[in-house]
Amino acid sequence: MRESTAVIGIGHTDFRSREPRTELRMAVEATLAACDDAGIRPSAIDGLCTVSTDLTGENNLATALDLRGLRFFAEVPFGGGGTCAAVGLAAMAVASGRASTVLCYRALNGRTRQRLGGAQLPDPRFVKDFQFYIPAGLSTPAQIAAVIARRHMYQYGTTQRQLAAVALNSRGYALTNPAARFFGVPLTLEDYERGRMVADPLRLYDCCVDSDAAVALLVTGAGEARDGRQRPVYIMAFAQGMGSRTELMPSFSRSDITCAEEARECAAALWRSAAIDPRDVDVAQVYDHFTPMVLMALEAYGFVPRGESGPWVESGALGRHGTLPTNTSGGQLGEAYVNGMNQIIEAVRQVRGTSVNQVPDVEISFVSSGSGVPTSALLLRR
Amino acid sequence: MRESTAVIGIGHTDFRSREPRTELRMAVEATLAACDDAGIRPSAIDGLCTVSTDLTGENNLATALDLRGLRFFAEVPFGGGGTCAAVGLAAMAVASGRASTVLCYRALNGRTRQRLGGAQLPDPRFVKDFQFYIPAGLSTPAQIAAVIARRHMYQYGTTQRQLAAVALNSRGYALTNPAARFFGVPLTLEDYERGRMVADPLRLYDCCVDSDAAVALLVTGAGEARDGRQRPVYIMAFAQGMGSRTELMPSFSRSDITCAEEARECAAALWRSAAIDPRDVDVAQVYDHFTPMVLMALEAYGFVPRGESGPWVESGALGRHGTLPTNTSGGQLGEAYVNGMNQIIEAVRQVRGTSVNQVPDVEISFVSSGSGVPTSALLLRR
Repeated sequence: MRESTAVIGIGHTDFRSREPRTELRMAVEATLAACDDAGIRPSAIDGLCTVSTDLTGENNLATALDLRGLRFFAEVPFGGGGTCAAVGLAAMAVASGRASTVLCYRALNGRTRQRLGGAQLPDPRFVKDFQFYIPAGLSTPAQIAAVIARRHMYQYGTTQRQLAAVALNSRGYALTNPAARFFGVPLTLEDYERGRMVADPLRLYDCCVDSDAAVALLVTGAGEARDGRQRPVYIMAFAQGMGSRTELMPSFSRSDITCAEEARECAAALWRSAAIDPRDVDVAQVYDHFTPMVLMALEAYGFVPRGESGPWVESGALGRHGTLPTNTSGGQLGEAYVNGMNQIIEAVRQVRGTSVNQVPDVEISFVSSGSGVPTSALLLRR
Repeated sequence: MRESTAVIGIGHTDFRSREPRTELRMAVEATLAACDDAGIRPSAIDGLCTVSTDLTGENNLATALDLRGLRFFAEVPFGGGGTCAAVGLAAMAVASGRASTVLCYRALNGRTRQRLGGAQLPDPRFVKDFQFYIPAGLSTPAQIAAVIARRHMYQYGTTQRQLAAVALNSRGYALTNPAARFFGVPLTLEDYERGRMVADPLRLYDCCVDSDAAVALLVTGAGEARDGRQRPVYIMAFAQGMGSRTELMPSFSRSDITCAEEARECAAALWRSAAIDPRDVDVAQVYDHFTPMVLMALEAYGFVPRGESGPWVESGALGRHGTLPTNTSGGQLGEAYVNGMNQIIEAVRQVRGTSVNQVPDVEISFVSSGSGVPTSALLLRR
């Protein structure tokens, strides 16, 4: 499968909160933008991939776009952990001849549905994992992440300022990204420290920005991609990882709760599959639902040794002139929270050379989906 | 991909209603049965596939079975239409080297959840499609199927007795299947006619039997299958189909509502992929949520010309000595309703030669998932 497939088009709606439009309408808009970007008609689409928490409905999207002859449609479980794998599934389908042009999309409207940042009570899939934690006051993702963050601080001496460094990094990139929710809105360390405590140690700006938006991208065979409107962005590898005793997202019965075990498993498969190592990556998009999860993911994927992510990030490693420019569109802390699908299209732009915060001479672009739940990651290549 | 993969193990729980156990517990039991059948340990499983309406939770199943190093997990949307495609996804994953042994499962407990036969109001995915039909009194799958059935009767002169023939056929097979809900419970035409009207023209025995159960099967590479405990059952082909203006399941804005358009598209892809035609099939399992849907699926897959399914079935074509023995375990009308996953393992048994209602010398075994929603189908081969 390696590099036999490519991303040929990307698109997204505006990133907003309090968006009145339905997921379906936003998914259509993002898809049309991706088709326009690729220079193809929607009728060329014969496959659909998304995450299973998406509420658009493949059939409704097909009707709205008048897609005929869809030959492949599949989903990846675990929302934020699954977006990279959705692109991977699309690549599998194309590589095996099951479809020729697969649309990957994620549309999210928390205004008319449930904000994913809130308590996870109504969803029967989540209730199993949360039932023992809710009586202890852990009912939102932020509250769970806070426990894991505290443990990382205890084990490795990670500081609040190091969490702040993750937020300030993302917001620094968002500042110059006109599409970002926080475009032109600077964040200083003082602002960060004045942010209200959401779940100790997580302050307001440690948490991603719940958004209503849709993002779409198109996967085809490498041959077709070379004839396309844009520079082809090859899918070098994708991987998934589950971890042990995995809950969504408290996995507190693991012996080690700060190693992002699902991401470690995913990382091992990813690097093996691509036959490269983390030092070969030129730019990264790391799922940033909460700042401490970025630190643990950077360790799990081997960009920095275990326990050393805090000082590394504080030293500016993720910045414009750092070792590993990361979350260059502002990520989910600065651009928008769309289950990381927006981070995948930023990874594509970095390979194309069209990011507003372009890293020079990108050869290999890394993107990870959410850890804390079964996860996935992608490597894209010029 | 053709015949590079095989089903090596199958398992299921008892088929019951009012089952007190959770989906998870039943999924574990079915999986252990499938592993025992295959002669492998659960630890060999490194992939999971199901339909996205399954509420078991891949992570919970992995924890319960102590699965480590899962490398692939994906889902197919549209419950009853997706079970064959879940097996197909597993085959894709194995064929592309992404996993070596993939567990496909479906666990359903309508007692503690929502009975799928009831009104589809609470599910946000269904509400979009049902919102315009509910005010007209169409809120359950049976009510929708009734409208489609009436149209088939109007167009082709299909009779109530022909619907009855589908039910009697399934119940005839169930009679001799000790695992079936209706094992040893005969159904006569008089019984059928005394069945209460559920949604005109659908009487009680035109509707499948809501059940609480789990079914599991295991997919590996063909090479490993040949060294297995059971006769290998090769996955010859799988296909998916969506159709146009597809709703779940009223697609009343199509110009033709009785052609099961999604199944026709799926059929075209299936026969092309396998390079055979319907006459080559020795035994069939056709998704029988409601009797008229069986008639329309038989036409859509090309087993009988359009409009002629009624007389064909009434003539005994689906019976033990018929042209196409069909739903030989009793199907969902006679064995149990588990989104057809039980029909897939019956298709496997027919190739192995181990069905309680074995058709002699089966070479090619066909199974279709539910039509009326985006659908899928499988061909299995000795």
